[in-house]
Amino acid sequence: MRTKHLLGLKGMDKQEIAGILDRAAYWEQSAAKVSDVLRGKFVANTFFENSTRTRFSFEMAEKRLGAEVLNFSSAESSVQKGESIYDTMRTLESIGIDAAVIRLKPTGVLQELAGKLNVALVNAGDGNNEHPTQALLDLYTMRKHFGDVKGLNVSIVGDILHSRVARSNLYGLTELGANVAFCAPDSMQAKELNAPYVTIDEALRADVVMMLRVQLERHDKGLIRSAEDYREQFGLTVERASRMQPHAIIMHPAPVNRGVEIDDELVECDRSKIFTQMAHGVPIRMAVIERVLS
Amino acid sequence: MRTKHLLGLKGMDKQEIAGILDRAAYWEQSAAKVSDVLRGKFVANTFFENSTRTRFSFEMAEKRLGAEVLNFSSAESSVQKGESIYDTMRTLESIGIDAAVIRLKPTGVLQELAGKLNVALVNAGDGNNEHPTQALLDLYTMRKHFGDVKGLNVSIVGDILHSRVARSNLYGLTELGANVAFCAPDSMQAKELNAPYVTIDEALRADVVMMLRVQLERHDKGLIRSAEDYREQFGLTVERASRMQPHAIIMHPAPVNRGVEIDDELVECDRSKIFTQMAHGVPIRMAVIERVLS
Amino acid sequence: MRTKHLLGLKGMDKQEIAGILDRAAYWEQSAAKVSDVLRGKFVANTFFENSTRTRFSFEMAEKRLGAEVLNFSSAESSVQKGESIYDTMRTLESIGIDAAVIRLKPTGVLQELAGKLNVALVNAGDGNNEHPTQALLDLYTMRKHFGDVKGLNVSIVGDILHSRVARSNLYGLTELGANVAFCAPDSMQAKELNAPYVTIDEALRADVVMMLRVQLERHDKGLIRSAEDYREQFGLTVERASRMQPHAIIMHPAPVNRGVEIDDELVECDRSKIFTQMAHGVPIRMAVIERVLS
Repeated sequence: MRTKHLLGLKGMDKQEIAGILDRAAYWEQSAAKVSDVLRGKFVANTFFENSTRTRFSFEMAEKRLGAEVLNFSSAESSVQKGESIYDTMRTLESIGIDAAVIRLKPTGVLQELAGKLNVALVNAGDGNNEHPTQALLDLYTMRKHFGDVKGLNVSIVGDILHSRVARSNLYGLTELGANVAFCAPDSMQAKELNAPYVTIDEALRADVVMMLRVQLERHDKGLIRSAEDYREQFGLTVERASRMQPHAIIMHPAPVNRGVEIDDELVECDRSKIFTQMAHGVPIRMAVIERVLS
Repeated sequence: MRTKHLLGLKGMDKQEIAGILDRAAYWEQSAAKVSDVLRGKFVANTFFENSTRTRFSFEMAEKRLGAEVLNFSSAESSVQKGESIYDTMRTLESIGIDAAVIRLKPTGVLQELAGKLNVALVNAGDGNNEHPTQALLDLYTMRKHFGDVKGLNVSIVGDILHSRVARSNLYGLTELGANVAFCAPDSMQAKELNAPYVTIDEALRADVVMMLRVQLERHDKGLIRSAEDYREQFGLTVERASRMQPHAIIMHPAPVNRGVEIDDELVECDRSKIFTQMAHGVPIRMAVIERVLS
Repeated sequence: MRTKHLLGLKGMDKQEIAGILDRAAYWEQSAAKVSDVLRGKFVANTFFENSTRTRFSFEMAEKRLGAEVLNFSSAESSVQKGESIYDTMRTLESIGIDAAVIRLKPTGVLQELAGKLNVALVNAGDGNNEHPTQALLDLYTMRKHFGDVKGLNVSIVGDILHSRVARSNLYGLTELGANVAFCAPDSMQAKELNAPYVTIDEALRADVVMMLRVQLERHDKGLIRSAEDYREQFGLTVERASRMQPHAIIMHPAPVNRGVEIDDELVECDRSKIFTQMAHGVPIRMAVIERVLS
């Protein structure tokens, strides 16, 4: 049997996505805090790029499934002394882990690893390429809130160019029949992706306004010279949020730059789903890890 | 029901303190190395300021109670990329942890978090404010050694100004009827605290001489210009220890600066309780975590 | 009863070594991924020198034995603020751990700790002195491949001077009746060790060619001025490997410097046992930890 992976949402069909969301709903409602589904299985969290939030969410999911968990982050690792990502992953395979959750910076390496390793891989953020569990939890949040994702208008605002969250959401949302529009300054647009770019005012008319974390240090100074510039031109300010439709929701993959891409007052406002998204991350990741190990 | 926390000893009454010490005595004598009391509960150790000793002690306590443990230290975290302490803690709440042990530098933030989060918080060191589990294990050590804390004379020597250990001990000891005196150079005194300052020679006459870790780099150079100066004026040297009462004990919250605030030879001498204090940390923390989660 | 340790292979007799290898064979074949042998025991991994591979291998072994695991690496620890290795280990002893796996840089400290602590210690790399579990897994790999270690010719090539792997292998291999030869540039030879030095061409004639990781930054520039120089004079190139005996195997303790001490194409070639060695690390460490705690 071939090793199962979750590398991305590109090419995943709607039945498969719905299957994961349904199983997440089961886990969300499960009374048992810790189950025995993965008793005796070893899952390694291998974060070659650090992330508190994502690692904790996966670790919670793994432990709720009853798995044994090994944590690794590159800051403390011999990757510092030149051991490559491949060699580290082969080492983990050799010592007998069953699955690895992996986050890494260089785009393309994950796909290559998947072809070489007999370990189930779950993509926890792969360069600028995909971040499928984030998109799945976003889809779950939208489906739960609106009943269906089909026909929803979703605006994704921010640094599309560098965003794996935008890509995974685009693939998943499109497959489920939602309409995606991007909004970004020129320097942050990814022209190859199949979605139209709209103005910030147009973006505000959607059912879902998803703001992305912006990292200004990544960009050449163009029309955006400062965090203040960015907020003024593309940020979700209190004023802009007041122009959203009454039923519309705000999403953000977090961590949030308060006062840059989103005003502080909006992070926990009624229409914000930001911490709800995080809560949904655990059952989504339970469903995904269970799936690659079944 | 309101979330229970352990934020500090200030305002905690003697019955409550005695209840914790009694329960710690139960855990100290318990034959079972791992119990099922917190089976299925998730406890996160969130150290925004690193500490091997304290984190290990808490982790041991949590695992002996049967809890699932998530570890976080800021060195490896996205707090580095600007995610605030509040957002990190809200994330942990969202993913479903039951309790968080927290250590952090900025004073006042913990109190604020406690008002906003539905997670039981245990203070593992809160700026210059309190370190209640350290004081509880100190009280436990004194009670176990002397039978009662009431009426004991306790000298606390060192950097009172920056010491959360001194504050928590002052509150707890006073509530239990001990007499506390401080001894410190001018630059390390906290005038607002309700205890007299005595000379080092007077401090030596107490039943308990508790030395604090000194961090000279925190201080403007005044009369204390070097570690040698500090040792000479305020350190517990072998000569000074020889002038303590025969029944008196030495305490220190550790880690110790050997040869600065205490001479190397004294760390493990007969009258030193330093490693005994550490051993008591585990049952005390078991009692405290069990309490906030019951 | 005295505390049991595994500090090194020097002085360990062949019955003892064979006992460990036999028990590892039992664990390698065990169907149960997680056993209850060490249920309720606490093992701390204390890495004062970081190592992904070795820590993960030990952690896997400990969890497969059912132990509770505490992880510590100096990067995140208060050792940074001057707490000594001794004080850290005494702290761990005080909080009640049963065994500690320890890796540290200064040679000689481990021996000293073993005399002072009531905690079973397992050496996971001790300065330039010994790395016994690495040598045991190497012996296990050779015994499994060849049926017996006795009479084998083993060449160890590389930085013998700084290699604890070379030392532990020398002691273990000699005790089991193998013939060891070293091959190294002058600046990397350890004259006090009881094995002859041979040329690289002679080294290639052995049954086992064990390459060591080379760290050029540790050495004064002599005849070896670059990684290219090293590869040319002492590296296991594809050409050199083609001159090995048909039945001979390649070993390396990893992590590997691909293209320096060994050519990239050889790392996973048919005669390479590098990832097999890693796989054997887990049952070996299970046998060792079980042994010190029995």
